[in-house]
Amino acid sequence: MTASYPDFDAGIAADLLERVRRTAPRVHCITNAVAQHFTANVLLALGAVPSMTIAPEEVATFAAGADALLVNLGTLDDTRRAAIPKAIEAAKAAGRPFVLDPVFVNRSPVRCSHAKELLSSSPTVLRANREELAALYPAEDPLEVLAGTSVTLAMTGAEDLISGPGGTVRIANGHPLLARVTATGCAGGAVIAAFLSVSDDPVQAAAAALTVFNIAGEMAAERARGPGTLVPELLDALYLIDEARISDRLKRV
Amino acid sequence: MTASYPDFDAGIAADLLERVRRTAPRVHCITNAVAQHFTANVLLALGAVPSMTIAPEEVATFAAGADALLVNLGTLDDTRRAAIPKAIEAAKAAGRPFVLDPVFVNRSPVRCSHAKELLSSSPTVLRANREELAALYPAEDPLEVLAGTSVTLAMTGAEDLISGPGGTVRIANGHPLLARVTATGCAGGAVIAAFLSVSDDPVQAAAAALTVFNIAGEMAAERARGPGTLVPELLDALYLIDEARISDRLKRV
Amino acid sequence: MTASYPDFDAGIAADLLERVRRTAPRVHCITNAVAQHFTANVLLALGAVPSMTIAPEEVATFAAGADALLVNLGTLDDTRRAAIPKAIEAAKAAGRPFVLDPVFVNRSPVRCSHAKELLSSSPTVLRANREELAALYPAEDPLEVLAGTSVTLAMTGAEDLISGPGGTVRIANGHPLLARVTATGCAGGAVIAAFLSVSDDPVQAAAAALTVFNIAGEMAAERARGPGTLVPELLDALYLIDEARISDRLKRV
Repeated sequence: MTASYPDFDAGIAADLLERVRRTAPRVHCITNAVAQHFTANVLLALGAVPSMTIAPEEVATFAAGADALLVNLGTLDDTRRAAIPKAIEAAKAAGRPFVLDPVFVNRSPVRCSHAKELLSSSPTVLRANREELAALYPAEDPLEVLAGTSVTLAMTGAEDLISGPGGTVRIANGHPLLARVTATGCAGGAVIAAFLSVSDDPVQAAAAALTVFNIAGEMAAERARGPGTLVPELLDALYLIDEARISDRLKRV
Repeated sequence: MTASYPDFDAGIAADLLERVRRTAPRVHCITNAVAQHFTANVLLALGAVPSMTIAPEEVATFAAGADALLVNLGTLDDTRRAAIPKAIEAAKAAGRPFVLDPVFVNRSPVRCSHAKELLSSSPTVLRANREELAALYPAEDPLEVLAGTSVTLAMTGAEDLISGPGGTVRIANGHPLLARVTATGCAGGAVIAAFLSVSDDPVQAAAAALTVFNIAGEMAAERARGPGTLVPELLDALYLIDEARISDRLKRV
Repeated sequence: MTASYPDFDAGIAADLLERVRRTAPRVHCITNAVAQHFTANVLLALGAVPSMTIAPEEVATFAAGADALLVNLGTLDDTRRAAIPKAIEAAKAAGRPFVLDPVFVNRSPVRCSHAKELLSSSPTVLRANREELAALYPAEDPLEVLAGTSVTLAMTGAEDLISGPGGTVRIANGHPLLARVTATGCAGGAVIAAFLSVSDDPVQAAAAALTVFNIAGEMAAERARGPGTLVPELLDALYLIDEARISDRLKRV
C-alpha cells in the first residue's frame, strides 16, 4: 500500500512545534459545542490562536484569513451545516489546509452522508477512529481508497496511524486517562490543523501534532490524580513540552 | 403522603455506582450551552459516556440508542425546543428512562409553560429546586400532585428529597462551595440519568446519584482552595469515590 | 480631553468588590459560545450570579430582571443577533447598566457594522482593545468621539485606560499568561457589568472591575505552572482576593 516513512522523528516534531510557537498561526475551528472552550484553550496553550465563529455570514471571512481550518461534525446543527461549505470554500480558495473530523458518523446516518459529501472537498487530513472509518467506508479499506488521493488519513486509537502521499507513520503515545476527558480527540484535530499550517508535508505535520498532544497527555497523567486534574495539567504540558520530552517519550511502532 | 423508604443505604449507592462503571451507559443530554462541557466531563469521570447533539434531524437516533436521556431546559433556544419532543418520544419508544430538569422556570413564564407540557410526557425523574417547583405548581404541593403518578421527584437543596413510587429518601450531603461553580446542578441531573439506566427503582437510583455526586463534592471541597480548584477535584473525586467513602459520609435525614 | 481622576484607589475597588459579594447581583450575559462556561464561573467565584440564555423569546424577561447586562459579539449567530436588541431594550427600560464588548470587529466587516448600530444604544461601558477600536473608529480618536457622550470607554491591553464622564483612570495590572487562556477578556467584560450594578460611577466601577480581575490574574500566575493551572487558580483568586491584596498590587499609571 504505502512505503515506510523514515522521515519522522522527535527532531521533526520539535521543529514543527517550534514553528507553531514562533508564528502563532490562527486556526479557525467549526467544532462542536462541547469542544469549543477546551479546543480554544488547547490551541492557546500550544502557542496558536483560535477563532470559533460558526455564523454563516462571517465564517468565510474568518476562514479565509486564518492559517488553517478545522471542520468537526459533532453537534451538527443547521447553523454549522450552513457554515461548513462556506468555510471550506474560503479556506481552499486561500490555499489553506483543512482537517475534517467526522465525529460520531457511526451513530447517525444523516451525519455520515453529510461527511461523505465533505470528503469530496478533499480535506488535507481526515482524522477519524476505526468505528468512524468503518461507517464512512463500509465495504472498503479506507487506506486503499485514500491511497490514490491527496487526503492524508490520521486514524487515531491506542495506536495512531498517519498515512498519506509519500508514506505512513505509526505512533503509540498517549494515556488511557485522556479518554475520560471530553473533547480530547476533537482538540487533537485542531492541533493537527495548527501543525499543517507550518509544514508542506501533511504526514509529518499530523504525526508531529499527535505526538506532541499525546506526549503532553502522558506528562499530564503522571501528575494528575484523575480526569479532573488531568485537564489543567494537559494544558500546562502543551505549554511546557520541549524537544527533550519528545525525544524521551516518542514511541514509533 | 409517602411511606418511609428504608431500602437505601451506602451499599445500594455503591452497588449502583459499580454498575455504572461496569456497563458505561451512554447518556444523551439535551442540556444548556453553559453546562454541556462540564456535564460531559462529569459523566466521563463517573464512568458513563455522554452524547450531546441537539440537532433535530439527529437527536432521535442518538436518544433511541442511548441508555438514558437528560432534558435540561437552560438556554432554551429554537433548536433545543425542536429537539426535545423528538428525543423524548424516541427514548420512551425505546423504553429508556428520562430526567427532566426545568432550570429557571421561575424566571421565565414562557419556559414554565413549556416545562408543564413536557411534564405530561411523564419523565422518570423530575429534578428541581424549591423555587422551580413553586413556579411549576403555584397552588399545590408538588409531592401530593406527583404522588399518584409514575414520576419520581428529586427536589434538590441543602437537603435533597427523593420521592416516588414506593417511598421517600432524604439526604443531606454536599458542600456550599458547589453553588459557586456553574452547572453543578445540571450535571447532577445527568448523573441521575446514568444511575436510572442501571436500576429499576427510580427512587434508589436518584438517591444514589445525588449521594455519589454530593459526597464527591465534599471530598473535593476538602482539597480545594476555592471554586476554581473545586472543579478538577470534583471530577477526580467522581473517578475515585468508592464504597468506603460513601459509607463514611452518607447523611440520611 | 479628560481631566485626571483622583477618585480611584484600592479602597474604592475593595469597597465595590465587597458590595458585589454582599448583594450578589445577577448579570445577564449574551456572550459567545466559547466564553459562556468560563464567564459563568468567573461571576460565581466573584460572588455574582450569571444567567446566560440567548433565546429571543426569553431574553427580555431575563435582562429586565437582571442587575446588569453584558453584550459580547463573539460567535454572533442569528439567535444572538435577534436576542441582543431585545435584551438591550429591556435592560434600558429597567434602568440597568449594560456593557458592550465588540469582540473581533476588526476581523469581520459584518460584525463591525452591527457593533456600530449597537453603539447608538449608548452602552454604559464599551470594552474593547486597540485593534477593535481602530475598526470601529477608523478615522477618529475614540476618546474624542466618546468624550461628549455618556459612554465610558474601557480600553484594555497591557495597560488599561478607563475614560468617561468625569475622568480617566489608567492601570497596569495583569499578567501575560492571561492571554494564553481563552475568554479572559470576555469574562472581564462580565465583571465590569457586575461592578456597574453596585456603583453610580461607571469609571470607578470599570476601573475596580479590571483591577480586581487583573490582580486575581497576577495572584493566579504566581501559583500556576502554565495556562492550564492558571484557570482554577484565577477562579480561586477571584474568590479569595481582598483589600490587602488589592492595596499591595494596584498599579496606577
